[in-house]
Amino acid sequence: MNMSAGRERLVVIGGDAAGMSAASQARRTKGPDELEIVAFERGHFTSYSACGIPYWVGGDVGERDELIARTPEEHRARGIDLRMRTEVTRIDVAGGRVRARDVDSGAESWTSYDKLVIATGARPIRPDMPGADAAGVHGVQTLDDGQALIDSLTRARGRRAVVVGAGYIGVEMAEALINRGYEVTVVNRGREPMSTLDADMGRLVREAMEGMGITMVNDAEVTKLLTGEDGRVRAVATQDAEYPADVVVLGIGVRPETTLARAAGLPLGAHGGLLTDLAMRVRGHENIWAGGDCVEVLDLVSGQERHIALGTHANKHGQVIGTNAGGGYATFPGVVGTAVSKVCDLEIARTGLREKDARRAGLQFEAVTIESTSRAGYYPDSSPMTVKMLAERRTGRLLGVQIVGREGAGKRVDIAAVALTARMTVDQMTALDLGYAPPFSPVWDPVLVAARKASRAVQQGF
Amino acid sequence: MNMSAGRERLVVIGGDAAGMSAASQARRTKGPDELEIVAFERGHFTSYSACGIPYWVGGDVGERDELIARTPEEHRARGIDLRMRTEVTRIDVAGGRVRARDVDSGAESWTSYDKLVIATGARPIRPDMPGADAAGVHGVQTLDDGQALIDSLTRARGRRAVVVGAGYIGVEMAEALINRGYEVTVVNRGREPMSTLDADMGRLVREAMEGMGITMVNDAEVTKLLTGEDGRVRAVATQDAEYPADVVVLGIGVRPETTLARAAGLPLGAHGGLLTDLAMRVRGHENIWAGGDCVEVLDLVSGQERHIALGTHANKHGQVIGTNAGGGYATFPGVVGTAVSKVCDLEIARTGLREKDARRAGLQFEAVTIESTSRAGYYPDSSPMTVKMLAERRTGRLLGVQIVGREGAGKRVDIAAVALTARMTVDQMTALDLGYAPPFSPVWDPVLVAARKASRAVQQGF
Repeated sequence: MNMSAGRERLVVIGGDAAGMSAASQARRTKGPDELEIVAFERGHFTSYSACGIPYWVGGDVGERDELIARTPEEHRARGIDLRMRTEVTRIDVAGGRVRARDVDSGAESWTSYDKLVIATGARPIRPDMPGADAAGVHGVQTLDDGQALIDSLTRARGRRAVVVGAGYIGVEMAEALINRGYEVTVVNRGREPMSTLDADMGRLVREAMEGMGITMVNDAEVTKLLTGEDGRVRAVATQDAEYPADVVVLGIGVRPETTLARAAGLPLGAHGGLLTDLAMRVRGHENIWAGGDCVEVLDLVSGQERHIALGTHANKHGQVIGTNAGGGYATFPGVVGTAVSKVCDLEIARTGLREKDARRAGLQFEAVTIESTSRAGYYPDSSPMTVKMLAERRTGRLLGVQIVGREGAGKRVDIAAVALTARMTVDQMTALDLGYAPPFSPVWDPVLVAARKASRAVQQGF
Repeated sequence: MNMSAGRERLVVIGGDAAGMSAASQARRTKGPDELEIVAFERGHFTSYSACGIPYWVGGDVGERDELIARTPEEHRARGIDLRMRTEVTRIDVAGGRVRARDVDSGAESWTSYDKLVIATGARPIRPDMPGADAAGVHGVQTLDDGQALIDSLTRARGRRAVVVGAGYIGVEMAEALINRGYEVTVVNRGREPMSTLDADMGRLVREAMEGMGITMVNDAEVTKLLTGEDGRVRAVATQDAEYPADVVVLGIGVRPETTLARAAGLPLGAHGGLLTDLAMRVRGHENIWAGGDCVEVLDLVSGQERHIALGTHANKHGQVIGTNAGGGYATFPGVVGTAVSKVCDLEIARTGLREKDARRAGLQFEAVTIESTSRAGYYPDSSPMTVKMLAERRTGRLLGVQIVGREGAGKRVDIAAVALTARMTVDQMTALDLGYAPPFSPVWDPVLVAARKASRAVQQGF
């Protein structure tokens, strides 16, 4: 029950990016006399950069606290009633209340809400196999996970690390462990690492990682984690082989954490995430919003929902939710699927659809790949770059771009991200007025070179 | 007269980016049996990167020939009848012919054309003042200019250089001369350097350049260049002061080289450049095209013509002209005014309209400025960046972006360049799905932070 007459109560479940951005933005819009804000967080931290954990583990970031954008105390100072180590165990939609449990004491109680924000995040996929919970086996989803891994590395007897999974968390953790002086093996179920790229581009990543001294094992399903007599992990086993390991990092991916939402009968999509409208309201519910890693987002290129766990989306969702919950108006139109990551000096970027995404969406396309350089060829430190571009048959609409290169490659994907949002054709892209000077780009930017080739392919394949 | 029955002759005036791109693209489209291509170049070189000259002078590029994309011999090997050191002295539009003079022998003759491409480039503005032609005073427009400057630097007695002009050539030359160990003074007529930026952003450039040990003199009109007894420049004089100089570099800007076109009665615009249609045909002339630094281009943001001398545009024009002259179809829709440059580690970028451009175009706007960083704040080598953004009142349409920062700042302007091309509003931009990972960007990319602030300003100023 809300006891303050005339004052609404906003309840937020989850104290990380989406939840606390929503709370903060709602507070900016409405003062404490108009809107009470209660936020529940089951962990020890608020508003931190999970994306930064690999760099903390690798030593690029010195202190855990550098990853924390805003502490519980800072949130409280802004008039948010933040309840740490308090886990919401049930959402009573009909009753307009949530049940929460103090993690330490076990005490439970109901809190009523006028408006609810669900920002329960994602949970890492843990393989259901022997040894998965052994000492020395680590996820890297939370700050607590990161601290546990760092402690484990300090205790590990040898210097052999196995990373399971070769998505962006897997490759970033490979870099982190290399930086800490480990021999690193990456075991990957797919044909090539970075399955967010097409395999032909993933191959470039594999070759570069092998060049960095990382052992890449592809097409390999981990069957069990072997432990020593002390109970600590000692090797990773696949059907074909065993890989000795003093420490194992799991980077297999995440799923939306929607246990509460499912139990409350809220609408979930094909990927297990909450379904929202453009104002980030849970579909069919006027006063419940959801955002961050627990929701599905509209892919503007394919027209279908996807699940993408990424801090930048979570922050945008939080802004939109907080604006709306505070009585303003904002929408989140969707994503184009941009992602960028690096392994040592290798930069990897993608946006839009891969070949298989396009096929699945019923789109026919031309795919072209070009080689170019980050700067004018004659300028020092010009580095090679491969750009793959997909364009729809007949219409020539840009469908996706993948880039693998060195310094200056990754953020070039933004050009394509904006072009995708604007539904440009590759022919239109050939005329884009991009920044040119020899230290920044060849006279034809690599993205323009790809667009020219894609445009010719579309014309020829008409 | 064209003597080969059934075979058309394409004549190209000017052997640099636009002209030779046009010739090459026309050749790709039509073989020598269908199309004869004759190109005239009055200088010693073809298809070179004038934009690379500062880096050659500064020592980043070792050899002049690295700046040459394609030599006369390479062009000839592709079936282009290239006549070097041959200056076109007249265009006879009615007669469909051009008169050309061998620079060395002085011999003149007429060459008839079926199709003509004018790519006469730009000429540097030389101040009309005493001493402007003295030894030790140099422009940096052509490879010959660059070689003369390098020779002059070798001969100069002292290490004091004065650069006249603080546009992008001026600041790039300041860097080049610093790299060669000179004490550099930049004398600039404007209130701040980089008048392609608003003065508030130009101030950041000035402060950074002063921090590099460059003496910046603003609001200063050069009145004369003083020479010593040997006839060599010894100082640059303004109304107020004299600046000792062992070498002087003129970077005052360029004007379209349209003397021939004007004499032929072809249509010129307010900036002295040729006016073309979207297919790059000179207006009113079916069989004459023009491109590169001698034409005016449509500014897609203001809707007015501008003159911009930039290799990347010249190359695009050449592609379009060559395609059309070869019987295909292509258009050049216009520019948004993107430019990027650097002085040592300072990166400077702009696209779209400055405040005064917007006013001149009759646009009312909100202007905002934000500070952010190139990477997540906690990531190593994250560097500060200032982003200024202009948005139209009421509609919120993006009008322009200016960025001053360090590594990673410059090419971010491409995000805005694409958004301008797509006529996005700043509110739409707040939702852009840009590449995010801690080594590449804060969770809100600086351009998004600016868009959010601009969006709020538009809403408040409605």
